[in-house]
Amino acid sequence: MAEVVEVPLCLDSPNFDALQAALPLAPGRPLVNSVNAEEASLEKILPLVKERDCAVIGLTIDETGIPKDVDTRLRLTGKILERAARFDIPPEDVIIDPLVLAVSTDHEAASITLQAIERIRAEFGVSINLGASNVSFGLPERHTLNQSFLALACAAGANCLISDPFRLSLTLRATDLLLGRDPFSARYIAQFRAIQSQQDKP
Amino acid sequence: MAEVVEVPLCLDSPNFDALQAALPLAPGRPLVNSVNAEEASLEKILPLVKERDCAVIGLTIDETGIPKDVDTRLRLTGKILERAARFDIPPEDVIIDPLVLAVSTDHEAASITLQAIERIRAEFGVSINLGASNVSFGLPERHTLNQSFLALACAAGANCLISDPFRLSLTLRATDLLLGRDPFSARYIAQFRAIQSQQDKP
Repeated sequence: MAEVVEVPLCLDSPNFDALQAALPLAPGRPLVNSVNAEEASLEKILPLVKERDCAVIGLTIDETGIPKDVDTRLRLTGKILERAARFDIPPEDVIIDPLVLAVSTDHEAASITLQAIERIRAEFGVSINLGASNVSFGLPERHTLNQSFLALACAAGANCLISDPFRLSLTLRATDLLLGRDPFSARYIAQFRAIQSQQDKP
Repeated sequence: MAEVVEVPLCLDSPNFDALQAALPLAPGRPLVNSVNAEEASLEKILPLVKERDCAVIGLTIDETGIPKDVDTRLRLTGKILERAARFDIPPEDVIIDPLVLAVSTDHEAASITLQAIERIRAEFGVSINLGASNVSFGLPERHTLNQSFLALACAAGANCLISDPFRLSLTLRATDLLLGRDPFSARYIAQFRAIQSQQDKP
């Protein structure tokens, strides 16, 4: 991958040995996906992140699994950030992922995640990552759900999304513009033109 | 129109005489679009609304035009509701429209409206109407902007939209589901099926 793209890589593996082998080879400052609030995970992954001086995604999961409520996700955010601080990893290098679950199995799943985003941003001010398209799993017309969720998540404070950049890039720019973050609609129009010129290619 | 559809009508005319003539003929409890915070408007329209015992949309505009800021829109909301109360028109019969302007001419236009919606809901608790598609005027791919704005506006507290029901109905149901308002995704799936069966028709 490092030979194909020019951006830093996100290394995503549950295999510790694979992460350890890949980290020295990745160019720039890579992003590790992920650590979680389990003791075993914190103790293994954080030293690796510190040694490579890179960034890490922290999932709000612990030994008891994925918490259903907002408060527990906040508590686990605090735990991950506190442990990172002990390794001298600053909060700006920890991107918290408050977990996106499918609304098809629990209709309150998305609203709990949206509340968690708002509270984590307010209390800790860290960046927020989301596996955004999980939200629509199992339902028809997933793209429509993904579009609405992206708008709601950005308004709540998410700033890092694992999603399809081709299908959702204009929705992202549209949302930024509507939130007052795009003077003269410049980035929205630039993205529209980029998509158009892509489509015009033979 | 009253012979074609079975729902109450929204009577939209700047012509007072036309409204006065149409109101007795409209079935059920019609909705008048609109009164605004100008003295001349309040004095002419509100007695008409009271006499017909119907509902009215109140635009946050006064003699000085459309206010750019949130505070003035809040103040004009208070003025309209207070004047309605003097005519014994209850707040639940006044739907406030805090005005949607194009982001193409002012990139903060949408975010000001979204803030106004949140504060009007918090301080007055009344229903909110929006001419939602105004937001995308003058920009390409208006539908993408309209979709994101609908999601953001619903999250802020809007509950009455002037928009294209065919193109935006699934986005509306998707947003409701993501906000935790649709147990078992029932209304989202029903809407998807309704669209599908409409498309299947020869």
